[in-house]
Amino acid sequence: MADHAARLARIRTHLAAAGVHGFIVPRADEHLGEYVPDSAERLAWLTGFTGSAGLALVLMDRAAVFSDGRYTLQLAQQTDPALFEPLHLVEHPPHAWLAKHATGPVGYDPWLMSEEAATRYRDAGVTLVELDPNPIDAAWPDRPPAPLGAVVPQPLVYAGRSSAEKRNEVALKLAEARQDAAILTDPASIAWMLNIRGADVAFTPFALGFAILHADDTTQLFMDPAKLGPGIHAWLGPDVTCVGRDALAPALRAMQGKRVRVDVAGSPAWFGQTLRAAGATVLDGADPCALPKACKNAVEQDGTRAAHRRDAVALCRFLHWLETEGRGHTEMQASARLLAFRAEAPEFRGESFPAISGAGEHGAIIHYRATPESDRVLGSNEVYLIDSGAQYPDGTTDVTRTIWTGPGDPPSELRDRYTRVLQGHIALATARFPEGVSGPHLDAFARRALWDAGLDYDHGTGHGVGSYLSVHEGPASISRLGKMIPLAPGMILSDEPGFYLPGQYGIRLENLLLVQSAPPGPRPFLQFETLTLAPFDTKLWYYETLNHHERTWLERYHTRVWTEIGPLLHKPAQEWLRRACLGN
Amino acid sequence: MADHAARLARIRTHLAAAGVHGFIVPRADEHLGEYVPDSAERLAWLTGFTGSAGLALVLMDRAAVFSDGRYTLQLAQQTDPALFEPLHLVEHPPHAWLAKHATGPVGYDPWLMSEEAATRYRDAGVTLVELDPNPIDAAWPDRPPAPLGAVVPQPLVYAGRSSAEKRNEVALKLAEARQDAAILTDPASIAWMLNIRGADVAFTPFALGFAILHADDTTQLFMDPAKLGPGIHAWLGPDVTCVGRDALAPALRAMQGKRVRVDVAGSPAWFGQTLRAAGATVLDGADPCALPKACKNAVEQDGTRAAHRRDAVALCRFLHWLETEGRGHTEMQASARLLAFRAEAPEFRGESFPAISGAGEHGAIIHYRATPESDRVLGSNEVYLIDSGAQYPDGTTDVTRTIWTGPGDPPSELRDRYTRVLQGHIALATARFPEGVSGPHLDAFARRALWDAGLDYDHGTGHGVGSYLSVHEGPASISRLGKMIPLAPGMILSDEPGFYLPGQYGIRLENLLLVQSAPPGPRPFLQFETLTLAPFDTKLWYYETLNHHERTWLERYHTRVWTEIGPLLHKPAQEWLRRACLGN
Repeated sequence: MADHAARLARIRTHLAAAGVHGFIVPRADEHLGEYVPDSAERLAWLTGFTGSAGLALVLMDRAAVFSDGRYTLQLAQQTDPALFEPLHLVEHPPHAWLAKHATGPVGYDPWLMSEEAATRYRDAGVTLVELDPNPIDAAWPDRPPAPLGAVVPQPLVYAGRSSAEKRNEVALKLAEARQDAAILTDPASIAWMLNIRGADVAFTPFALGFAILHADDTTQLFMDPAKLGPGIHAWLGPDVTCVGRDALAPALRAMQGKRVRVDVAGSPAWFGQTLRAAGATVLDGADPCALPKACKNAVEQDGTRAAHRRDAVALCRFLHWLETEGRGHTEMQASARLLAFRAEAPEFRGESFPAISGAGEHGAIIHYRATPESDRVLGSNEVYLIDSGAQYPDGTTDVTRTIWTGPGDPPSELRDRYTRVLQGHIALATARFPEGVSGPHLDAFARRALWDAGLDYDHGTGHGVGSYLSVHEGPASISRLGKMIPLAPGMILSDEPGFYLPGQYGIRLENLLLVQSAPPGPRPFLQFETLTLAPFDTKLWYYETLNHHERTWLERYHTRVWTEIGPLLHKPAQEWLRRACLGN
Repeated sequence: MADHAARLARIRTHLAAAGVHGFIVPRADEHLGEYVPDSAERLAWLTGFTGSAGLALVLMDRAAVFSDGRYTLQLAQQTDPALFEPLHLVEHPPHAWLAKHATGPVGYDPWLMSEEAATRYRDAGVTLVELDPNPIDAAWPDRPPAPLGAVVPQPLVYAGRSSAEKRNEVALKLAEARQDAAILTDPASIAWMLNIRGADVAFTPFALGFAILHADDTTQLFMDPAKLGPGIHAWLGPDVTCVGRDALAPALRAMQGKRVRVDVAGSPAWFGQTLRAAGATVLDGADPCALPKACKNAVEQDGTRAAHRRDAVALCRFLHWLETEGRGHTEMQASARLLAFRAEAPEFRGESFPAISGAGEHGAIIHYRATPESDRVLGSNEVYLIDSGAQYPDGTTDVTRTIWTGPGDPPSELRDRYTRVLQGHIALATARFPEGVSGPHLDAFARRALWDAGLDYDHGTGHGVGSYLSVHEGPASISRLGKMIPLAPGMILSDEPGFYLPGQYGIRLENLLLVQSAPPGPRPFLQFETLTLAPFDTKLWYYETLNHHERTWLERYHTRVWTEIGPLLHKPAQEWLRRACLGN
C-alpha cells in the first residue's frame, strides 16, 4: 500500500524549497492526451486516484482531488479524505478553489497544462509560477521510464496518401496564413502526417513525440532515437529530420522572428512561452493536421469498411454465444469471449479501449469497467450492455449493443426507453444536412424521442474515430460541448444515444457513421453511411411506436447486416444471424 | 449627388498627413450596435452604401467595400466601382484583402472596432495604428450632430424590478468573480439596468451612452446631460452619477490597479487600451447585464403577453383586409395599412424594425425593403410575405406570415415547401429540452423537414427579443452561428424558419416563443410558450403530410388564437378570424 501521506509531505517540502505555496497536478502527459504512459501517472502516484480525468491541487495546509461524475465513487474509494478533499470538477471549479485558498504564488508544470488552462487560473486571481522540472519527478524514486515502443510504417495500402503529399498540403495552408511553421504536440497528428504508428500507450497505436512542420514542408521530428529502427529513417525520407527530445528547446529558440502556429488550448503552455521568449510570434490556431486527418481518404474509407466487416463477424459470433450460452457467465468472461473472437482475425492488433461489459445495474455506469471485485454473472431477465472496439491496421472500430438476457419478456418501461434510444439513433443515422453543419447542431436529433418524455443521457452522442489511431479523435464530434467543426466527407463519428436508470440498467446503441456527400441536389448536402454491422435486439423495441421511416430503416439495416455478414459466418452463428436480422 | 471621389481623395490626404497607408471604415457606431445614428453613418458618407452590415478598406491606390449576400445587389447599385471594388465579406475576408494589399501601417478608429476584430487583422499580418479622432469626421463638414433624444423612465409597472435591485444582482456577480467593475457599452444593457428608455436611433428605444458598474453597485453613467431632464436624476437615484461623455477617459484613467471586466468582442477596442494604459487589469467577459436582461421577469412576461394580444388585433385586422381588399394594393400600401392598424392602439410607440412587405419574387429577398422604385402591386395567385413588429411600453413584437393572394389554388411545389417550413416551425415550438441546452442545439429541429428534401434557408431560425428594447437582442439565439448560451426561463426568441426560391417567392413563418420551465419530471426541463397569435394561411399547407402531433398543435393554436383574439375584434374581421381559425 502506497504511503500517500509521505508522498504529499515530500512534495510540500519541495514546494517550500521552491518558494511557492502550492502546486497543480493534472492527470496529463506532455501531449495532453487521453491515454498517458505510466511515467506520466503523477496524479495516481500522488493521490491514488487512477481515473482518466482529474486533477489535484496541493497547498501547504490542504489539498483536493477533482474529477467528474463518472468517477465520484472511485475517487472516494481510492483517495484518503484526510489528505485530499474529493471534489467535483464542475461543481467546484479548481481555479475558484485555488483563488479562494491559495495565499501566495502557486506552481504548475508548463508541460502538463495548456496556456488556456493557465489563463483560467490567472483570470480567477491566482498567481502562477512555472516549475520545470516537475517537482513530483524528483520525489518519485521509482518513476517508470518513458515508453520506447518501436515505430513502424503505416503503409500506403492503409494510409492511402504519402506523407510527402500530406505535409505538402498542410504546409500550403500554413503559407496561405503567412505562418512560418506549426508546432505539433498531438502524437496522433504526427502519426497521420508521417504515416507511422507506435506502441507507447495502451489502446492507441501512436508514438509519443513532437514535431515542427515548416511552411516549406520540411519537418523536424523530436522523438527518442531508440524508438526509430533503421528502416524508419528511409520511410520518413530526407525532408524529415529526426532528433531527440533534448533538441526541442534549441529548435524553438532558433525560431526568432518567425510566425509560429500553436494550438494554445491543446498544447502545453511551455511551447508558447519558449517561443515568445525566443522572439517568435505565437499565432493561436488549431492543430493543422487535425482536420485532414479526420477526413479519411478513399483508401482509408475502404479500409474501415473492411475492418468493420471483420469486426462484425466477431461481434455477431459473440451475440450468438451470448444468446445461447451467455447467461451464467460473468461480465469479464463475456468481454474475454468477445476479445477471443476478435483475436482470431490475423489483422487484430488489440482493443481500441477497455471494453465496457455491464450487466443489470452496472450498465447504468457510463464508463463501467468490470474488475475482479465488481464482476458479476449475467442473470436471467436482465439488460446487458457491451461497448467495445478493436484496432486493425485498416481501421478502428467501436460498437455498443444492449441485450435482453431472457428468457422472459422485457418490462414495458424498459422497452419504451429502448425504443426511444433506437429512434434517436435512427434520427441521427438518417439525417441529411447541408455542408457547414457541425456535430453540435445534430446532437439533439438523437435526443428528441427521449426529451419528449422528459428523459436524457449525460454524455455526448458521438465522437470522432481514427483510422488505426485513437478511438476518440478530434476535431469533430456530435455533442453539445463539441467544437463547431463543419462535418465533412470522410469523417467517422459514433452515433451512440443511451438511457441510464441508476441502480437498474443502462441502454446504449452505437454504430459508427461515415460522412458522405449526398446525391446532387439544389445545394451541396451530406449524409451518413453506417459502418457498423450487427443486429439490434428485436425483443427490446416496440414496433408499433416506430413510424414508417424508422421501420424502413431498421428493415433495410438488418437486411444489409444479413447480406454482408451472413456469408462470413459458419453455422450455427449464421443461422442465428438470419433469425436476428430477418426474423424467420 | 454626393461626390464620393472627392470624399475619398480628402480622406487619402488626411491619411498621408497622419503617416498611414490606409484606413478601415466599418459600418458601426461607438456601441457596435445594429442601428446607428446619422452621425455615425461614415460608411454611407464615404461610399454611398447604406446597408446595415459592411465595411470599407481605403488604401492609397485602391479601396474596397465589403458586405454580405443580402446586399450584393444594393452594393453594386450604390457604390462606384471605379472608386470601390465591391466584395463579399465571407468570400473575401477583409483582413486577408488588407494583408495582401497594404504596404504599410493601416489606421483604424478604436471606437468603432472591437479588440477581437483588431486582433483578426493583426494575426493576418496587418500593422494597425489607432487614429482617434476619426479622420472622416474632419473631412465631413456637414456631419449631423449626435442625437439628443430625451431619456424617460421605464416605470416599474413595465420593468418589474427596480434598478437598485438589478444593479445589486449584477454587482454581486462581479464581486464573486473578484472584478472591481464592468464597462457597459451596449445602450440596451444600460436601459435595462437603469430602467430608462430613450429616442436616439430608429426602432429601438434606448439612449446612447456608456456606463461603469462598480462591484459596490454604484454606477457612473456617461451621457450628454442635455438628454437628461430633471426628473430623470431623481428616478436614477443617488447611486447613479450622471456625467458627460468627456468624463469617460478620466474615469478609466482613475481605475489604476483595478480588475475591470470588458467584453473584448462586443465593445470598442478603445476601452481595453485605455484601461491597460491606466494600469488596470482587463478581464474579458460578456456584458454582465446581457443574460439577466434576456430573462424577462414575471411582470415583463405578462407585459409581453399583453403586447402580443394588442399586436394580434392589428395583425388579424390586417390579414382580413389583405384577404378582402389587399389584391391590387402595393407592398408599401400594404405595410402602411398594417402600421395604421397598429397605430390605433394608444400604447403603440413605433415599429420595432422596418417592415418587410414582399410580393412574389420580392419575398425571396430575405431583408427586402420596399422603396418607391421597387414597390409593386400584390397580384393574383401569388405569395405575399409580411414580416413586421412593433414597440409597446410593455413589450416588443416581431411576426411573419406568408399568404396566398388567390383566388386560384397554390401550386403543389409551393404547398410542399410551405408545409415543410410549417413542420419546422412546429418542431421547434413543441420542443421540450433539458436545462443547459442552447439555441444552436435546437436550430436543426426547424430545418429537418426541409433538409429531408435537400432544402434549407440561409438565415438563423431565431433571435432574442427585448422587452420594449431591441427586436434583435442577445445573448441567446437559435442559430448555427449563435453563442452557446443555455436557454433559460423568461427568454423570448423568434421561431422563423423559411424557404426562398430566388426570382419566385419567399416563405417565412414567425412566432415569438417564451422559454418556460416544463412541468416537474425526472430532471429539470424547459419548453416554449407561443406568444404570437395570428392564423397561418390554411390554403398553403398539405394536411395529409402533417403527422398527428403536428395537426394537434395547429388545431390547438388556431383555437387559442380565436379564443383570445376573436373577442377583441369587431365584425367582419371577427367573422373572418373565426373562419381562418376554425375553418367554418
